[in-house]
Amino acid sequence: MRDVAVIGVGLTKFGELWDKSFRQLTAEAGSKAILDAGIGGKEIDALYVGTMSAGRFVGQEHVGALVADTSGFAFEHIPAIRVESACASGGVAVRQGCLSIASGMNDIVVVGGIEKMNDVGGTSATGTLVTAADQEWEAFFGATFPGIYAMLATRHMYDYGTTREQLAQVAVKNHANGALNPYAQFRKEISIETVLKATTVAYPLGLLDCSPVSDGAASIVLCAAEKAKKYTDKPIKIIGSGQASDTLALHARRDICTLESTVHAAKMAYKQANKTPKDIDVAEVHDCFTIAEICAIEDLGFVKKGEGGKAIDNKITTLDGSLPVNTSGGLKAKGHPVGATGVAQIVEIVQQLKGEAEKRQVPNVRIGLAHNVGGSGASCTVHIMEAM
Amino acid sequence: MRDVAVIGVGLTKFGELWDKSFRQLTAEAGSKAILDAGIGGKEIDALYVGTMSAGRFVGQEHVGALVADTSGFAFEHIPAIRVESACASGGVAVRQGCLSIASGMNDIVVVGGIEKMNDVGGTSATGTLVTAADQEWEAFFGATFPGIYAMLATRHMYDYGTTREQLAQVAVKNHANGALNPYAQFRKEISIETVLKATTVAYPLGLLDCSPVSDGAASIVLCAAEKAKKYTDKPIKIIGSGQASDTLALHARRDICTLESTVHAAKMAYKQANKTPKDIDVAEVHDCFTIAEICAIEDLGFVKKGEGGKAIDNKITTLDGSLPVNTSGGLKAKGHPVGATGVAQIVEIVQQLKGEAEKRQVPNVRIGLAHNVGGSGASCTVHIMEAM
Repeated sequence: MRDVAVIGVGLTKFGELWDKSFRQLTAEAGSKAILDAGIGGKEIDALYVGTMSAGRFVGQEHVGALVADTSGFAFEHIPAIRVESACASGGVAVRQGCLSIASGMNDIVVVGGIEKMNDVGGTSATGTLVTAADQEWEAFFGATFPGIYAMLATRHMYDYGTTREQLAQVAVKNHANGALNPYAQFRKEISIETVLKATTVAYPLGLLDCSPVSDGAASIVLCAAEKAKKYTDKPIKIIGSGQASDTLALHARRDICTLESTVHAAKMAYKQANKTPKDIDVAEVHDCFTIAEICAIEDLGFVKKGEGGKAIDNKITTLDGSLPVNTSGGLKAKGHPVGATGVAQIVEIVQQLKGEAEKRQVPNVRIGLAHNVGGSGASCTVHIMEAM
Repeated sequence: MRDVAVIGVGLTKFGELWDKSFRQLTAEAGSKAILDAGIGGKEIDALYVGTMSAGRFVGQEHVGALVADTSGFAFEHIPAIRVESACASGGVAVRQGCLSIASGMNDIVVVGGIEKMNDVGGTSATGTLVTAADQEWEAFFGATFPGIYAMLATRHMYDYGTTREQLAQVAVKNHANGALNPYAQFRKEISIETVLKATTVAYPLGLLDCSPVSDGAASIVLCAAEKAKKYTDKPIKIIGSGQASDTLALHARRDICTLESTVHAAKMAYKQANKTPKDIDVAEVHDCFTIAEICAIEDLGFVKKGEGGKAIDNKITTLDGSLPVNTSGGLKAKGHPVGATGVAQIVEIVQQLKGEAEKRQVPNVRIGLAHNVGGSGASCTVHIMEAM
């Protein structure tokens, strides 16, 4: 397979962006990435867009064509493909962009991720988000994602002795990182007391254990690796890409605390990259709820199953720990415009590997990993990156 | 690029299927295709699903994972990717499946297309379909697709002298074909008088110029061409695949009667296949409205621009004409469950090329073409196929 590298990245600020439309957000992130890559519109072979539910949030399907149109690519008639895999839509878009270059069909591909979740009509954000769960087995009976992840958390506490305080510490860490990220929705440190005192959403998860409802977009430019140095001195190679599925509903799984889709996607990515979890220097993982980060660092093989809580206590994953996790602030503090998240994770890892992460920069990073989950783990992508 | 062949196909009946759920439809089409290919579940490397708006129609996003789950693939953790490009979702899913095999990542891929448009809550089918148009420039002002295609039709009449009767003849022809197709929604011949007398939806388009609101699913199994003969004596090779975009809204186009996305996607597919329009023996084109078929046969190069109406008069595109078009009954008579359409078109062409189209069989077919359009042409795919 032909190798693929990232040659440009772009982000909008994440947050409640009442003054920016869906169209404006895609254009802003996309034009930043294209400018960063230093490419012209005529060099772009295809466009991939990850978005979960523009149809429900903003009444717009046909999102690939919309983004092509807004970006001026429609006049070049560039193929535009929207992919959806709930909150993993961005990661899946990145992977499809990579495969299209690997096929030899395309040399340069722009990948965008976008969601506009505030200032929407018709339905609540929670009502749309739960369309990522199983309608017939979960949503119909009133389940929402905080409730689903709360079940996962209580089981993790029961099986492994994970504590309420350990969950809270994930939020404290990610807010500390988010405070250093100019693009983050929450740029404010919080104390463990604040997390513990916050309104309970679904026990044991309180308001500050949950990622927010966000607007935002992210974009990257992918290039056939052998041509990447033509555009940048520091291309970041995607050395491993994995994707896996699992049952949509939680009840059908062998062990609800293990996201098998993460385990399998990671295995695929590690194998392709010829790396092990020990080789990873920095990771962005899918912390839609604090418990999700604890499961993720276990399922990715960074710590043994059940020891995710202890890893938080031991400060392994803080900015100055041995494996900094969610240096961007994660979904928790950077924000979680669902379709944008998987692409934004790649942006953060690229910036870390290029030494351009400013106040969040981890020293001596060589290899980074991005982990994006859909729903409660029915889909997952893992990407591993290294500077060329 | 590695060549790709179709080794199995499956369809559900199209129509108002009040007794079958979204899940049941995907399982039925998928299991038929897998059985037809004679493959086992463990041989499948990935799943691609085209659906336009399951989020709005049936309250379910994360559709790739749902289909993987329903099909039992989730237990194998097979990557499942949903793609959306409005009514071209099926064609785009086929193309992405092909690229993933061309990349070397996958050898065998199942592609499904699905839409459940009846028995849905919350919104009308027309209200959801118009999310494929431009929300800010078209839908917000009350435009719907019959209205948009009516503008195209009146302009075509003005520019080229196309007549109301020629439009109606497209419906008559496609109903005649649909009457021979056991999977078609409408299996009933109609007369030109019936079409002309039908209620006007948007002048000049009457009720019988419009494709119906349909439920249905289609599936194909794709395989690396060099391995295809292991599974079937008659693999059908995809010798050309093209995709292109255009502006989402009609007003921004140079000429509303020319779907530039069709022109560009066809150019790409003909080039890859090393064929010209003259080489095509049978074609399925996107006749969401009768005018759309007239534009399609022009934009695909079968006849000169403006002569699509005359081609209908001259019976070129009937079952016994020199280039039979929409032998399945087309979207008009077979039905148009939007996400399924692009995949179902491939199914029809495969059956024609294998000599398995029964009463609809065109004699001596060697090369077939499938043409799938999103919205009013903001996206399009063209696939060209030949028996190996």
